[in-house]
Amino acid sequence: MDAYIAVDVGGTQIRVSVFPAEGTKPLRQEKISTRDVSRTATERLIDLVARLWPEDATVRSIGLAAPGPTDPKAGVVIAAPNIKEWVNFPLQQILQDRFHVPVLLGNDANLAALGEWKYGAAVGYHHVVFLTISTGIGGGIIIDDRLLLGERGLAAECGHVIIDPDGPLCNCGGRGHLEALSSGTAIARYVADELKKGRPSKLPLDPPPTSRDIFKAAQTGDALSIEAFARAGHYLGLFIASLAHTFNPSIVVLGGGVSQTRELLINPLWETLRKNVMAPDYIKDLVITTAALGDDAGLYGALALAQQVK
Amino acid sequence: MDAYIAVDVGGTQIRVSVFPAEGTKPLRQEKISTRDVSRTATERLIDLVARLWPEDATVRSIGLAAPGPTDPKAGVVIAAPNIKEWVNFPLQQILQDRFHVPVLLGNDANLAALGEWKYGAAVGYHHVVFLTISTGIGGGIIIDDRLLLGERGLAAECGHVIIDPDGPLCNCGGRGHLEALSSGTAIARYVADELKKGRPSKLPLDPPPTSRDIFKAAQTGDALSIEAFARAGHYLGLFIASLAHTFNPSIVVLGGGVSQTRELLINPLWETLRKNVMAPDYIKDLVITTAALGDDAGLYGALALAQQVK
Repeated sequence: MDAYIAVDVGGTQIRVSVFPAEGTKPLRQEKISTRDVSRTATERLIDLVARLWPEDATVRSIGLAAPGPTDPKAGVVIAAPNIKEWVNFPLQQILQDRFHVPVLLGNDANLAALGEWKYGAAVGYHHVVFLTISTGIGGGIIIDDRLLLGERGLAAECGHVIIDPDGPLCNCGGRGHLEALSSGTAIARYVADELKKGRPSKLPLDPPPTSRDIFKAAQTGDALSIEAFARAGHYLGLFIASLAHTFNPSIVVLGGGVSQTRELLINPLWETLRKNVMAPDYIKDLVITTAALGDDAGLYGALALAQQVK
Repeated sequence: MDAYIAVDVGGTQIRVSVFPAEGTKPLRQEKISTRDVSRTATERLIDLVARLWPEDATVRSIGLAAPGPTDPKAGVVIAAPNIKEWVNFPLQQILQDRFHVPVLLGNDANLAALGEWKYGAAVGYHHVVFLTISTGIGGGIIIDDRLLLGERGLAAECGHVIIDPDGPLCNCGGRGHLEALSSGTAIARYVADELKKGRPSKLPLDPPPTSRDIFKAAQTGDALSIEAFARAGHYLGLFIASLAHTFNPSIVVLGGGVSQTRELLINPLWETLRKNVMAPDYIKDLVITTAALGDDAGLYGALALAQQVK
């Protein structure tokens, strides 16, 4: 029997699953904390893979989703939140030297797109844009059934597209990026600013409400909270209008916590999108939907990546 | 001997060239006016191809660049300036029925990108963005050596990416599109508006100066004219920063009349681009250059398309 090993390294957890060569139900899986003062993440990741290594199966390859910018061609993690030793870190070579099977790396948002395309909400679509909207905004793009990587594997950083050159500062230092306008952080910041200006709302000024608090308030009809999601959806709509003109996708999949607000976000998104495409042809048959795999998207994307080794 | 036929249909001219299967020097070529009151463009195009058809060679295929939105998968021209009968027009089928060889269609800006990639400024690059900047702005994108078409073949309409949601209206009716900020028309409009406000300049208020007049004035040091190109370059820089984050290209090729202003446009473009990428990695080794094929880009792109039939 043959098997694949899929690894999802997140800022808080490292997950490893062993899958049969034909099938999507893990044979075994385990997760550990990413941070541990006693030993490096690399050592603990290697131990976990070794512990789960199937004795009765031949492992064809390991696919790994890394939590930050990654050069998949060079097999190098450029940087990773909460893992300080992973800076321009040749993780692919290190794992290959240790386990003697092919190792493939990818950025987690890119691989989440691959996971949703192969096993989730975008099965059967050929031109896919995946956005994960939580504290930040990440992305992955599939073109003609292939993951868009770009020259150095840095493509699909959708959170850092400039939407409004006069907009608010982004965490990265840029101005008016999508992440600064439509992420959970941006929604919370907008509400906090409006509350400080004295806008009436069910929400308290202090402590500043989280995007989850704002979602709950919106569900009970709080106008400011509804407006905050509509504003985020509006900017997403501008982004997707530009994407429709450049990529002409057939489906946009929204993941991450903020996407769980569904119509609060997606209705205003569609309204802006319809107003801003050049011609209805660009959004004819376009599907905008929420992700199906949740927190497993990166893991299943790592599996899909590993499966490129037959 | 085998041959390919390349056709470039523009708003003013229809050009047909016959190329040897191995080679880029036309065996024969001719051009006619696109508009003629007596007969349709389709009839005249068919006559021209028939007249140039090589008696002593086997034609493998015909590649055709169409001057407006085109669905290359369906082989249909959606609309074409100056050819009123070409509305959802099945040109591929009509030509195949007449000439009994495979016919491939593409939008002219997309095919100009393909031409520059195979025979022009982007030879050897794998991730290419091509922009043609003249009265409007068109584009073509190559990813992993393949032309980006998108779900319905409508991709790479770079002129209609939203750069500033509060910006000026575009010819298409949208707001703040790249074409409304950085095209020759946009440059001329900006200068006309500034002159009306009383800005000092060597240029006359009336008749309103063209982008060519403004280029000449910029070359003699006219501050308003220099600023007008710098402004266009700035918005191009914002666009390319977002492209760097989404496509991670290795080369950007600028064609069209406005690109002939070179450093007047490209220096401000680079300045804005450097300031607006998240990390230098995104523009490491990025080349920004001017097109090499001029008015022949579409024709050589049609040849490159035809050559897909071996």
